[in-house]
Amino acid sequence: MAEYVIAADVGGTNIRAAAVDEGGGIHGRTSAKTPREGTRGELVECIASIARELAEKTTATDFGLAIPALIDYENELISKSPNLPQLEGSEFAKEITERSGLNVIFENDATAAAIGEHWLGASKGAMNAFCITLGTGVGGGLILNGKAFRGVDGTAGEIGHVCVEPDGPPCGCGSNGCLEQFASATAIVRMANEGLANCPESPLTSIDSFSAKDVFEAGIKGDRLAVEVYATAGRYLGIAIAGLVNVLNLEVVVIAGGVSAAFDLFIGETRSEVRKRAFQQPAERVNIVRGALGNNAGILGAARQAFARR
Amino acid sequence: MAEYVIAADVGGTNIRAAAVDEGGGIHGRTSAKTPREGTRGELVECIASIARELAEKTTATDFGLAIPALIDYENELISKSPNLPQLEGSEFAKEITERSGLNVIFENDATAAAIGEHWLGASKGAMNAFCITLGTGVGGGLILNGKAFRGVDGTAGEIGHVCVEPDGPPCGCGSNGCLEQFASATAIVRMANEGLANCPESPLTSIDSFSAKDVFEAGIKGDRLAVEVYATAGRYLGIAIAGLVNVLNLEVVVIAGGVSAAFDLFIGETRSEVRKRAFQQPAERVNIVRGALGNNAGILGAARQAFARR
Repeated sequence: MAEYVIAADVGGTNIRAAAVDEGGGIHGRTSAKTPREGTRGELVECIASIARELAEKTTATDFGLAIPALIDYENELISKSPNLPQLEGSEFAKEITERSGLNVIFENDATAAAIGEHWLGASKGAMNAFCITLGTGVGGGLILNGKAFRGVDGTAGEIGHVCVEPDGPPCGCGSNGCLEQFASATAIVRMANEGLANCPESPLTSIDSFSAKDVFEAGIKGDRLAVEVYATAGRYLGIAIAGLVNVLNLEVVVIAGGVSAAFDLFIGETRSEVRKRAFQQPAERVNIVRGALGNNAGILGAARQAFARR
Repeated sequence: MAEYVIAADVGGTNIRAAAVDEGGGIHGRTSAKTPREGTRGELVECIASIARELAEKTTATDFGLAIPALIDYENELISKSPNLPQLEGSEFAKEITERSGLNVIFENDATAAAIGEHWLGASKGAMNAFCITLGTGVGGGLILNGKAFRGVDGTAGEIGHVCVEPDGPPCGCGSNGCLEQFASATAIVRMANEGLANCPESPLTSIDSFSAKDVFEAGIKGDRLAVEVYATAGRYLGIAIAGLVNVLNLEVVVIAGGVSAAFDLFIGETRSEVRKRAFQQPAERVNIVRGALGNNAGILGAARQAFARR
């Protein structure tokens, strides 16, 4: 009989969950809207009830949970979660265990995606790889010597807040010109809005409050504004990756997250910046590729961690 | 009886060598001018004869050699050495062994400095540390999980060529605005020369082709130009360190190399940039300190590697 764990990827908008077998097979996939404005008890109950339902159909006893938070792995507590502050503290795992009957293993969501892509996706087999998640924000997870690397407090991987333009746009983190200000979905929309006045021919002018997806769709149809915006995103992404490559001499950089749908619109500029700015040997070595697991990377990474702890 | 190894730090200008005991004690320190323009045979003979002399006074059979080169550790060959191209290829170690009777262990010079500072200096006891060497150029070496981290081809640690100003001054590496263009001795001199016209009161105006040391001496006397130049260097160093800290969540960043003599002139600006640009938790965690071993860091790191291979 197959062995299963339960895995969930808790985002600011949705909670995605499934039972996962040892080979990474995904079963009984389900999802729910994250009760973002709710109390901690509501969030616990929502996550635990999804997990219970999945566990009842399998023999699973372990529950891997990818969450948008800084995790203090040593003390097994959630030290910071700007998007879901209800998660913070040490009681969350205990409460989910009480309500679901499952052993809970936390993982930071960007690290979980890196682990998932390394287990079954685009960086499989690599000793040293970075997974950059381009979404509403920009996150990252690091695999070094074949294992997740989290740093001394578990905060490693924050590529989204590497400075790529010292006097660039202000960032919520307090700095200026962070990668997130150029390569996130939020930044794509901001940059397109900034350029709109100079591009009256752009189809984006006729959409009220367009999304990064709208910019992408205009881009694949050849809209000059959209193409330029994604080229700018690609350029700054390349500057950040060149730095990673010079410092860490990585085999693979995986580009994941929603914005990676527009991979073909930005990757040329990204690769050209890396060739220009990184040393020849590490620049030739690194393989910059699109994530292979799509939305499943976080769930699979969380499942992998649950299997690893058994 | 004490156990010894021979260790040398081969630079573009000088070769420094000594016998080193297991506790890091340095004995019979010696040095020679690097025969930079000489043939490979002359360089081999120069290094081997220094090592022979030191070995005769001890029981040493191993020779740790810090060199300014990219090293292919797996195949034990020197893959690139821009400053001493005579080193390149696979024969160098064999030739030194033949002429000195010692087993040769290579280490990249910046990595050797990182290992030395981690063994006995400013990052002793840290699990994750970066050592930045500010000299003619800017180099770096990385300790992760308590061990030297070199990346897949041995090129990791190249912080000097991390981009900190995308449209900044051109760099010899082919990129623009590398850290080396702001924080090396060469950059200090360039930036001071650029500012000279606006600062006719600076004592630097009266020195023909001044050095970074001259700028430093003007700075400690309060010369406005020199103070501004070191503040700019410190600012960009802080931008690069903030990126390292966000990505790697390090315990210690060591500032070593000749320019670190001016530590007090730039470190305020560096720390302030790190506080502004890195996330709060890793920014509060990281200790940014001056190297504790001065010129000996490379020799001690090379010695440590020689002891480790016995």
